[in-house]
Amino acid sequence: MTQPGSRSAETRRRLLEAAGEVFAEEGFRGATIQQICGRAAANIAAVHYHFGDKERLYTAVVDYADECARAHAAATEAPAASGAKPQVRLRAHVESFLTRLLDRGRPAWHAKLMAREMIDPTAVLDRLVRERMRANHENLATIVRELLGPDAAADTVRLCVLSIVGQCVFYRHSAAVITRLYPDLVPAKEIARIADHVTRFSLAAIRGLRTARNGSNGSGTKA
Amino acid sequence: MTQPGSRSAETRRRLLEAAGEVFAEEGFRGATIQQICGRAAANIAAVHYHFGDKERLYTAVVDYADECARAHAAATEAPAASGAKPQVRLRAHVESFLTRLLDRGRPAWHAKLMAREMIDPTAVLDRLVRERMRANHENLATIVRELLGPDAAADTVRLCVLSIVGQCVFYRHSAAVITRLYPDLVPAKEIARIADHVTRFSLAAIRGLRTARNGSNGSGTKA
Repeated sequence: MTQPGSRSAETRRRLLEAAGEVFAEEGFRGATIQQICGRAAANIAAVHYHFGDKERLYTAVVDYADECARAHAAATEAPAASGAKPQVRLRAHVESFLTRLLDRGRPAWHAKLMAREMIDPTAVLDRLVRERMRANHENLATIVRELLGPDAAADTVRLCVLSIVGQCVFYRHSAAVITRLYPDLVPAKEIARIADHVTRFSLAAIRGLRTARNGSNGSGTKA
Repeated sequence: MTQPGSRSAETRRRLLEAAGEVFAEEGFRGATIQQICGRAAANIAAVHYHFGDKERLYTAVVDYADECARAHAAATEAPAASGAKPQVRLRAHVESFLTRLLDRGRPAWHAKLMAREMIDPTAVLDRLVRERMRANHENLATIVRELLGPDAAADTVRLCVLSIVGQCVFYRHSAAVITRLYPDLVPAKEIARIADHVTRFSLAAIRGLRTARNGSNGSGTKA
């Protein structure tokens, strides 16, 4: 026998999954509570009971996708110890980030939903930036600062962080182009190899920028 | 007096602009010919006369946005001569690409439309990849191959190309996140500075990978 409590939790989860799919397909504005209830085989009262309104349902869906991604990433990798060398922490950071972006265990609607937030941001993006992405960038900035040396300009640190994040996000955002250009490259199956490349590319870049700043090799790096 | 021919061309252009906005807001599926005609102050017969159907109107809109971007990029930069050093050609390539991605002279719907193609690709993306993006990647691969040296593995060339393209596309695709994290960074106003960074970062990276491959400095680059 199913307990009333667990049946209610099950309805909530079903609504979240259905809403994720519908929001991903139609966007926040286009999606209707009716569609979502139809797909979840739930009634509108259940949406009101669990979430209140469409906006709060949407917020809950994004949080749910975010938690799933983090839970999966946490289960699949051992993070580098914070006392480890910055090279090692960079590798761990890049692989963890790529896993969250590309993981094939996640439903396709997770990535689609975030891509829609990039096109038509809602208040949810403000919160995600504040609560999640800022920490991701700051963590990376700490590593980059150590690699660049103590007298690196804040702007150089920032641009290097953006170069690293950009290399990773590209495999998610431009997946449709990558699969058309390189059908044999399946990023979700090659996370470790891509993480290796992004780490080596970025470490070599940062080392080169550091050397150029120290004046021992400035001429060749200015295009 | 307006000539009938030029009035017809003017209606066609108005339809393209209106359709661009509506497709960007609603997506290909969500947009209706009625909405587009309403915004263009044109009638449905004009759509049929100029474009045939919604699908062909959509294709024409993407081509129109692409042509506008290329015309603007061509007007604002002097491309590097093909005989120039690969470092110089890389700088020119990156700046030209960033200009096409970020140019503020273009209506906002251009970028939004392409972002939607990344989420829900249509046959238009297949064609754009075939006719435009492949050439962009091949051009960059030629430069990277020269920088890496003749015995570089094809896979290394490809991953480096993806690292460079990814750094650039990020400023467009993740603009909503970048403006929230770094309100003082306005990529469209700083194309030259970002192009400088991406070029220097990538040149240093490629030089480092080349050195590591030549065996003179292999230890430090493997994380």
